[in-house]
Amino acid sequence: MKISIIGVGLIGGSLALSLRKTIPVNKIFGVDTNSANLSKALELGIIDATSELDEAIEDSDLIILTVPVNSIQDLLPSILDKVKNNQVVMEMGSTQQEILEAINDHPKRGRLVAVHPMAGTEYSGPEAAIDDLFTGKNMVFCDIVRTDADAFEIAESICDALKMKPVFMNAKEHDLHTAYVSHISHITSFALALTVLEKEKSQGRIFELAGGGFASTVRLAKSSPDMWVPIFKQNKKNVLEVLEEHIRQLQRMHDVLEEEDYDTLFKLIKQSNKIKRIIK
Amino acid sequence: MKISIIGVGLIGGSLALSLRKTIPVNKIFGVDTNSANLSKALELGIIDATSELDEAIEDSDLIILTVPVNSIQDLLPSILDKVKNNQVVMEMGSTQQEILEAINDHPKRGRLVAVHPMAGTEYSGPEAAIDDLFTGKNMVFCDIVRTDADAFEIAESICDALKMKPVFMNAKEHDLHTAYVSHISHITSFALALTVLEKEKSQGRIFELAGGGFASTVRLAKSSPDMWVPIFKQNKKNVLEVLEEHIRQLQRMHDVLEEEDYDTLFKLIKQSNKIKRIIK
Repeated sequence: MKISIIGVGLIGGSLALSLRKTIPVNKIFGVDTNSANLSKALELGIIDATSELDEAIEDSDLIILTVPVNSIQDLLPSILDKVKNNQVVMEMGSTQQEILEAINDHPKRGRLVAVHPMAGTEYSGPEAAIDDLFTGKNMVFCDIVRTDADAFEIAESICDALKMKPVFMNAKEHDLHTAYVSHISHITSFALALTVLEKEKSQGRIFELAGGGFASTVRLAKSSPDMWVPIFKQNKKNVLEVLEEHIRQLQRMHDVLEEEDYDTLFKLIKQSNKIKRIIK
Repeated sequence: MKISIIGVGLIGGSLALSLRKTIPVNKIFGVDTNSANLSKALELGIIDATSELDEAIEDSDLIILTVPVNSIQDLLPSILDKVKNNQVVMEMGSTQQEILEAINDHPKRGRLVAVHPMAGTEYSGPEAAIDDLFTGKNMVFCDIVRTDADAFEIAESICDALKMKPVFMNAKEHDLHTAYVSHISHITSFALALTVLEKEKSQGRIFELAGGGFASTVRLAKSSPDMWVPIFKQNKKNVLEVLEEHIRQLQRMHDVLEEEDYDTLFKLIKQSNKIKRIIK
């Protein structure tokens, strides 16, 4: 199988490293507007060759898009214009609704498999790629009824090869639930970093007092704005809604503390502990 | 050396396990109002014997308090009443100012070493104890000028044995900076758990969509209210102040997203990325 990876960053690079180990790969082409990333991916043995987008599309059995969601939206129509009926395109957007609405009536819609691998780290670029990033994680397949059966089978075999568990939902549900569960975590982490940088003028004190708890809650604040601004833009309505709820919850904790209502504060924390049942 | 651990939970238990491996310990007594925790600690070999508080004080060279901060405050005056000048008391509170103000004029003040080990996990109880919890972490010594030189030396040797790095500040500074760096992380995590439990009525969707990012930001929400309500109570003023700033930062991210001011959103995220320089 010849594979093109459009966007050789953390996700694209990790994908290449994993697939190389698990399925028969003839050649992996890398496409990226960032030439430093391309050279690095080649040097690290993540890709076999660099390529221009049009040639990559021409030469590949499988084309995987792992660029930020705005770029997926920009590139997808012209990629679908060019693919033949024996080729498969997978896009791995963290948001799906806008991307899929834009190509829903495309004559080659069936060649596209829309997936969102629920895996990542706060790092970016091909240097951050790791071969077991996806192991044991979920792969969300969106609007799969619009995908041709043979294209789905190829994507399913990729999901298997990555040792991921398939999950199915429509694009609208996907964007709603990822806002509620995943995107809000990034917002809180960015805001926490800004809070600490604003209040704590002494970098030394942050060094001295940051235990594992602070490090883990603020970890996602290292994430790239190039990736996250387009996600928040495309999922604005849902993100605003969950963010408003989050501000309400914080304000409530603030108010009960200010009023010295420690019984209610205790109950709120006890209530939040229920997350234990869900997250191990 | 005979050591009493008052509070055989995560911190007290981990302390006993570490010290057993690194310094000559004759006997470790465990004291706890929770008899199930005491039996468990004995069964796990964390302590050598259970004891009543008064006997433990009588029989020990070193008495370490690892109970919630409200209990430290309650117990400390009567413990100091009983200690002799060849005994040392260490209290390991996550807040310090109220605790230390209450015993500042005690005739045995010099026997007390006030420290805050910047280590912990979201778990509690002796089952959660691990022998390398403290390795490489910072131990904050508070108001050390009020401690007798020989008592400080004993505490310093404990700090060394735990492979911790000593850091010094006064109690007021300690409470201010821990609110800014550590306590706010717990508040955001509790509130994030409440937000997700409120918005996302489908537990199944949380399971499916919770990647590593969500798990790490919400991890601290598993922390016990028995420990945290007293911390927030004792550090109310500082915690409210940093929480107000945090709500402002979230509201700002909300507003720029609502106004579709993506340039500012990009700048805010880029600014938050500066936390990279401080947290590895």
